[in-house]
Amino acid sequence: MADYQVPLRDMNFLLYDVFKADQLWQSLPTLAERVDKETAEAILQECAKIAEQEIAPLSRNGDEVGVNFDNGKVTTAPGYKQAFDTYVEGGWTALGGEPAFGGMGMPKMLTAFHEEMLCSADISFSLYPGLTAGAGLSLAKHGSDELKERYLTRMYTGEWSATMCLTEAHAGTDLGMIRTKAIPQDDNSYLVTGTKIFITAGEHDLTDNIVHLVLAKLPDAPAGPRGISLFLVPKFHVNEDESLGDRNQVSCGSIEHKMGIHASATCVMNFDGAKGYLVGELNKGLACMFTMMNFERIGVGIQGIGAAVRSYQNALEYAKDRTQSRSLSGVQSPDKEADSLMVHGDVRRMLLNMKAMNEGSRALSTYIAMQLDIATYGDGEAQQKAEQLVALMTPIAKAFFTDLGFESAVAGQQVLGGHGYVREWGQEQLVRDTRIAQIYEGTNGVQAMDLLARKVAGSKGQLVKVFVEEVQQYIAKNTSEQMTEFLQPLAKATTELAQLSQDILTLAQDNPEELGCAANDYLHVFGYTAMAFVWAKMAEVSFMQDQASEFHQSKLHTARYFYARILPRCQSLIASATAGSDAMFDMPEDLF
Amino acid sequence: MADYQVPLRDMNFLLYDVFKADQLWQSLPTLAERVDKETAEAILQECAKIAEQEIAPLSRNGDEVGVNFDNGKVTTAPGYKQAFDTYVEGGWTALGGEPAFGGMGMPKMLTAFHEEMLCSADISFSLYPGLTAGAGLSLAKHGSDELKERYLTRMYTGEWSATMCLTEAHAGTDLGMIRTKAIPQDDNSYLVTGTKIFITAGEHDLTDNIVHLVLAKLPDAPAGPRGISLFLVPKFHVNEDESLGDRNQVSCGSIEHKMGIHASATCVMNFDGAKGYLVGELNKGLACMFTMMNFERIGVGIQGIGAAVRSYQNALEYAKDRTQSRSLSGVQSPDKEADSLMVHGDVRRMLLNMKAMNEGSRALSTYIAMQLDIATYGDGEAQQKAEQLVALMTPIAKAFFTDLGFESAVAGQQVLGGHGYVREWGQEQLVRDTRIAQIYEGTNGVQAMDLLARKVAGSKGQLVKVFVEEVQQYIAKNTSEQMTEFLQPLAKATTELAQLSQDILTLAQDNPEELGCAANDYLHVFGYTAMAFVWAKMAEVSFMQDQASEFHQSKLHTARYFYARILPRCQSLIASATAGSDAMFDMPEDLF
Repeated sequence: MADYQVPLRDMNFLLYDVFKADQLWQSLPTLAERVDKETAEAILQECAKIAEQEIAPLSRNGDEVGVNFDNGKVTTAPGYKQAFDTYVEGGWTALGGEPAFGGMGMPKMLTAFHEEMLCSADISFSLYPGLTAGAGLSLAKHGSDELKERYLTRMYTGEWSATMCLTEAHAGTDLGMIRTKAIPQDDNSYLVTGTKIFITAGEHDLTDNIVHLVLAKLPDAPAGPRGISLFLVPKFHVNEDESLGDRNQVSCGSIEHKMGIHASATCVMNFDGAKGYLVGELNKGLACMFTMMNFERIGVGIQGIGAAVRSYQNALEYAKDRTQSRSLSGVQSPDKEADSLMVHGDVRRMLLNMKAMNEGSRALSTYIAMQLDIATYGDGEAQQKAEQLVALMTPIAKAFFTDLGFESAVAGQQVLGGHGYVREWGQEQLVRDTRIAQIYEGTNGVQAMDLLARKVAGSKGQLVKVFVEEVQQYIAKNTSEQMTEFLQPLAKATTELAQLSQDILTLAQDNPEELGCAANDYLHVFGYTAMAFVWAKMAEVSFMQDQASEFHQSKLHTARYFYARILPRCQSLIASATAGSDAMFDMPEDLF
Repeated sequence: MADYQVPLRDMNFLLYDVFKADQLWQSLPTLAERVDKETAEAILQECAKIAEQEIAPLSRNGDEVGVNFDNGKVTTAPGYKQAFDTYVEGGWTALGGEPAFGGMGMPKMLTAFHEEMLCSADISFSLYPGLTAGAGLSLAKHGSDELKERYLTRMYTGEWSATMCLTEAHAGTDLGMIRTKAIPQDDNSYLVTGTKIFITAGEHDLTDNIVHLVLAKLPDAPAGPRGISLFLVPKFHVNEDESLGDRNQVSCGSIEHKMGIHASATCVMNFDGAKGYLVGELNKGLACMFTMMNFERIGVGIQGIGAAVRSYQNALEYAKDRTQSRSLSGVQSPDKEADSLMVHGDVRRMLLNMKAMNEGSRALSTYIAMQLDIATYGDGEAQQKAEQLVALMTPIAKAFFTDLGFESAVAGQQVLGGHGYVREWGQEQLVRDTRIAQIYEGTNGVQAMDLLARKVAGSKGQLVKVFVEEVQQYIAKNTSEQMTEFLQPLAKATTELAQLSQDILTLAQDNPEELGCAANDYLHVFGYTAMAFVWAKMAEVSFMQDQASEFHQSKLHTARYFYARILPRCQSLIASATAGSDAMFDMPEDLF
């Protein structure tokens, strides 16, 4: 496998040339105090070092060895503990945390790149700090100061890690059905009993304590999702002097054997009257848990990008090096027995698909992260608009980036032919590792419904208008003639997206099933259109360079490829999305 | 995992209702002697038994345990030897073989279903007899009677297995570069020296001897593919009395560790002056090897179908059983805490995609197998036309069925959510196992070039006309009004395919790279159009039933789904295929 090289140039291009992050940070008082361009560049550089040098080398062996489970004890793969310690020493566990409790409070535009680097290096590793950061967001927002002082601070220092315990064997998407119980005690604590499955990092040997955030129901709670509360349940009790006390009544019953992310401990967690503390209000647990969802779902989307970027780097190195057959245009390398794979149109197709999707995803992810930062730190109309865009685009980030990431990982494997199927080249691991990102944190089908039913239909199309107007204003403001090749098809795609949204909403007035039937196609049309928007922005900046550098030339070529060969995917998707639900619901269940 | 159930009903529907196989067999004298409907039904029934009861139960454990390599010795997974013996006792190794040497000479229309059953049960297992059958075709066609008497007969009895040794570390797609040498000896034999990689079933414990068919070059052979000869190299020498003699100088150096098909031994084979015998003429080795390619490539295509069918069965069982959330139309199962997954549009989308693609692939595969049988056993104009259709559609069978098979396997995994990602449900194994079918036996990119450059451009579009006219005649003959819903879009799709073929050939006149850039999209447009053709045929037969049975109703619903939601994929593919090669070749290699 090629050594992982963090695409720092592209990240900085997006931050400062395309999205003017430095100006944005300056304009938001909270962020202006915390970060400027110089700090941000130093952060990314340091992060790149640890990703390339400490974490990436662990990935292959982590996949082979996996996680060891022995009688409740979980041991991570060789090297994990040491790399995690290095990561903690670097202060990375505090990167996105609340400054009041020891966090660095960096904007999502930066932490998103940190996440991408970690995922390119090793998705399994990334999940240990990743889940802790996610739980930290929820705790920071909803926990009492006492809980935050006691637990959150030590999650930020990296001494302790955290989990999110939602799923039960019979309740995944439908959390309203969970059966885990919490019984109130006289001392204001609760005794939590139940079994949670698919708990990432539920048990491991990287930290001294593990802080579980657990969804459970009080005995007299209302039925369904309105009866769910959120509890903090530590693996070890914490004494008044902050030293660790006895083991709490929570244990790991087994770990899952999975298709990929072998080095991530996916645990069955048994809570057997474990002492827990309420986070937020009673029966508002789902809301507390979903606080972090916008951050987390973008993060899972970025997992798809991470694996795809790695796959591209490997495939490109292989394609340049491997010689096989001659170009259709005649011999290109007469000194060699055959030409390199780079001369073959179909290999270029696979590589350019990957490059256009990966860089397009990174750009769109940065755009969404920027909206999240404005929504979090901005005010007034700009803040409101950003909040709307975040609500709209978070399910797209999660599902679209992971679907494209998987496609890209598979394409990279295909470039290597048989060598892509054997383990030693690493390509097949990326396919297995990234596959999970389409499933967890809400399956991509659930994301599509979140987008179309909750966000689009729920706002009667209003949220779509916010996005469409943003693009249309961009097009209207941009009168440069050389941009016509992009702006014309972008305008057309945007109009078609608006029309599609309207058409589906009209169909769904008579039959709500239209939403479920169209959701997946719709999400992808939206994704490709939004990606066309950010590719236009990247092209615009690249045109602006007086002496167009190789970097900017590459951007322009890739933008053209995206518009010529990827954006047309919308045509079929629109045809399918508007084909009506009859073809899907006329068929009785017995005929399947 | 759901118990595997062979879709016998669908297979018989295709054979007798849609493609009138019994009438065809009657009309071809050679086949009339060998097979009739009664025999064929008995064969499929018996084959279903062994696939369901003997082979399918091995798959999961075979994946877990894999193949053991110890100092040149390869041991297959527990149960494999016993199941293989049962398979041999049933006479299945002779199914497609030449009757003159002990084969049963069954038509491809039947052996194709036998292959599908084996692949649904366990792709790894299927490869041991599969490679032997493939090598048998080449030997039957090109070997001397002496070689056939000595080796082929015992491949048909199942006493011995066979391999195809093509790939070397530096030479995969480009076999002209192979370095394995064959030195002529005085006794008419050759000493073969070289290393072959990715050799399926190169070494194992299922049979007493292994017959390797090896591509090698004589020292004075012409450079490139015209200097390749084919040799038969047995693992053990065979004495004059047909008993086994000493070990030949061929050994297994190691086995590959792969993403899937863990129970298939993928070997590095070292030939170290191994005694071999020429098959066919000197320097005509590639042609001898490619004799079986039409059969083999359809067979690999069927691997995609096999895994996808299994994935559908599992996903459907899960979707019916699993309850999660409520229908958009309101509560469907008030007695349960939630409705089954079957009420959700997006789940139906995934299942119907699978069903439409799987049954469409099986129908198209049967159609191509029929052409292969007519090409093999027919005469006159019908035979010639069939031969053209086989040449045209073999790369489609290989690439399209495996691309769709992979998509379908992934969709089945998605239906199970997190349970699809853990190993115990078996869905993730199907994804890993079927992935290889897109790669070996000529990558799908190579297939696309075979179709577009060799077959379509090579015939100046003539072969496409044969197919287009076949469809147009079918449409013209069919005046039933109720078929309009299918025939109208079929006519449109066929016209668009013809136009696309013409457009690409015109583009390619100026620039041959257009072929490489369009090949993959083109193959898929052709595949979906051909699939629309067989879906129309299936719908036609289903309409004919007086009392439409559930089976035929299901066919009609699925046909409608295919036309509404899958056939429109052509629109985007056509746009991409005709976007021109500039977007792919303007970019210098350094800018990737």
